Amino acid sequence: SFSRGMQTVTLIPGDGIGPEISTAVMKIFEAAKAPIRWEERNVTAIKGPGGKWMIPPDAKESMDRSKIGLKGPLKTPIAAGHPSMNLLLRKTFDLYANVRPCISIEGYKTPYTDVNLVTIRENTEGEYSGIEHVIVDGVVQSIKLITEEASRRIAEYAFEYARNNQRNSVTAVHKANIMRMSDGLFLRKCREVAENYKDIKFTEMYLDTVCLNMVQDPTQFDVLVMPNLYGDILSDLCAGLIGGLGVTPSGNIGANGVAIFESVHGTAPDIAGLDMANPTALLLSAVMMLRHMGLHDHAHKIQMACFDTIRDKKVLTKDLGGNSKCSEFTAEICRRVQDLE
Amino acid sequence: SFSRGMQTVTLIPGDGIGPEISTAVMKIFEAAKAPIRWEERNVTAIKGPGGKWMIPPDAKESMDRSKIGLKGPLKTPIAAGHPSMNLLLRKTFDLYANVRPCISIEGYKTPYTDVNLVTIRENTEGEYSGIEHVIVDGVVQSIKLITEEASRRIAEYAFEYARNNQRNSVTAVHKANIMRMSDGLFLRKCREVAENYKDIKFTEMYLDTVCLNMVQDPTQFDVLVMPNLYGDILSDLCAGLIGGLGVTPSGNIGANGVAIFESVHGTAPDIAGLDMANPTALLLSAVMMLRHMGLHDHAHKIQMACFDTIRDKKVLTKDLGGNSKCSEFTAEICRRVQDLE
Ligand SMILES: CC(C)[C@H](C(=O)O)[C@@H](O)C(=O)O
Ligand SMILES: CC(C)[C@H](C(=O)O)[C@@H](O)C(=O)O
Repeated sequence: SFSRGMQTVTLIPGDGIGPEISTAVMKIFEAAKAPIRWEERNVTAIKGPGGKWMIPPDAKESMDRSKIGLKGPLKTPIAAGHPSMNLLLRKTFDLYANVRPCISIEGYKTPYTDVNLVTIRENTEGEYSGIEHVIVDGVVQSIKLITEEASRRIAEYAFEYARNNQRNSVTAVHKANIMRMSDGLFLRKCREVAENYKDIKFTEMYLDTVCLNMVQDPTQFDVLVMPNLYGDILSDLCAGLIGGLGVTPSGNIGANGVAIFESVHGTAPDIAGLDMANPTALLLSAVMMLRHMGLHDHAHKIQMACFDTIRDKKVLTKDLGGNSKCSEFTAEICRRVQDLE
Repeated sequence: SFSRGMQTVTLIPGDGIGPEISTAVMKIFEAAKAPIRWEERNVTAIKGPGGKWMIPPDAKESMDRSKIGLKGPLKTPIAAGHPSMNLLLRKTFDLYANVRPCISIEGYKTPYTDVNLVTIRENTEGEYSGIEHVIVDGVVQSIKLITEEASRRIAEYAFEYARNNQRNSVTAVHKANIMRMSDGLFLRKCREVAENYKDIKFTEMYLDTVCLNMVQDPTQFDVLVMPNLYGDILSDLCAGLIGGLGVTPSGNIGANGVAIFESVHGTAPDIAGLDMANPTALLLSAVMMLRHMGLHDHAHKIQMACFDTIRDKKVLTKDLGGNSKCSEFTAEICRRVQDLE
């Protein structure tokens, strides 16, 4: 993979601490000689011709060309009717799968060790359909929309992911005992797809049972696949098990290789610009991105340097329990990356 | 309270280990001289005149009279269209609030200590409306129904509960950033009700954020109130934090004092009849019941005897880490209850 030419990645630094942690990632990529050319784009939602919110044309155009994005945290303006930027990006590029590997980080203490699972969330429909009505005064309904197509697509993604990442089992998470038709359809598609992956063990589990078992013994889980809202919940719960959003990577995957990798923590405006931010979540998301692009050697090296730095405990940002600056933590990872050459 | 006459409670022993753990509770109540007369009723769903599933008339009649029920686990037959017995009971008696105190049990080791929170779940609507449609082939919708009335009612219940149980704060759990109208309505009602309880701190939090924070530090939470599905999930998650469904009590509260208290674990058919079951969840549910009935002294004594037995670690059922029989564990609690006289 070292011999390939440079590949372009659209970099959306984001707001608050976004620019700092993006700079950190770029420095580490440089130290690792990762063959990436960054195309920086600002993303603020703008109102298009028809009054519809959209992302700026130059960002859209860059993504359409590069197909791969790396994105820091974006603040969502509180203007009435303003959509979440995250949702807008998922929608614009039809990023149907949200993938979050949650793997315990040695040396970063949480109540759990040996967590090693991946949540795969359907990203386009379900409870996020946006369809709601007032039936009569004081009675409101929200519609959860489940389609055969989106369910099959995410199930296929989950099984392919399991196979390609040496994982042994896929658990479909559902409440088909309550939402018999919608979750029932989702589950049926998972079962059908499972038939084509006899090498991967398939199980089904109620969402409430998963939550209970998860906090009691997360090591029993491997790949989990589920509708949108359940994924929203479980992916954050699992992030909590390994240390929170500051250390959890995330990828949003679409068709034909299009993907945006992102840190899912906030913009932390209180520490923005103070060289105090922790770039780990964005860095590990960038590592996922490298793997997605087939750049496994670079991915491995950077991940190792990052984990070694954390395990070593000498140079850590404040949130990780140390007292180093973002730039010092970054420099330490760079040093280790270069040592690994 | 010792001077009051006997009060009748409808006892639904349930299936599997239900009868054994019910017997255990009755023995302990007897040792504590709790002024309760049990009226045992079998509950198996039957088909009523119009073909509708209902609970047997003699169980309904008993509950209508006693207003208070204690219930072991019920198995739900897999017959097509058969409703969950739990849902049927909630519906039959309009038990609109599911209340689960999750309090760490000293001596029973989990990754968390000092958990001390209560989840209050809206039990009648939301994602459990049962309304679903096939729109076209392969496209299904489930309807989440939120009403002003049910939202206000559960919010009021939560604040009253907080006030009556010396708790300081109520957190409304929602996804109003996504389900703006339905969760928005729920949240608005919580805010309105909060205005009338200036002594209780009110906060709002996204469900995903609650899950993440919960596994990182559950001690930050006090009373949590939420729509049906979120409550299903969070109540199980929180049960996991303190040791699982085997030690977690639960109450379903309706209007005018009607209530059913229940263990929420399964029927455990594999160990049924073997004198191996752990009666703790049903016993602690019965303690909640005593408090609900104003029998605080009896509640206190029984709870203390139970917790002392667990802390002492000498006589424990297998699932609690010991090797005593259900009857031995029960006898030990009885002995301690009598010592407390
Ligand atoms: C920001 C918000 C709309 C979003 C969601 O609910 O999906 C977030 O929680 C996430 O998981 O990306
Ligand atoms: C048995 C099932 C229908 C029920 C639910 O989903 O509400 C259960 O999980 C519960 O929490 O009581």
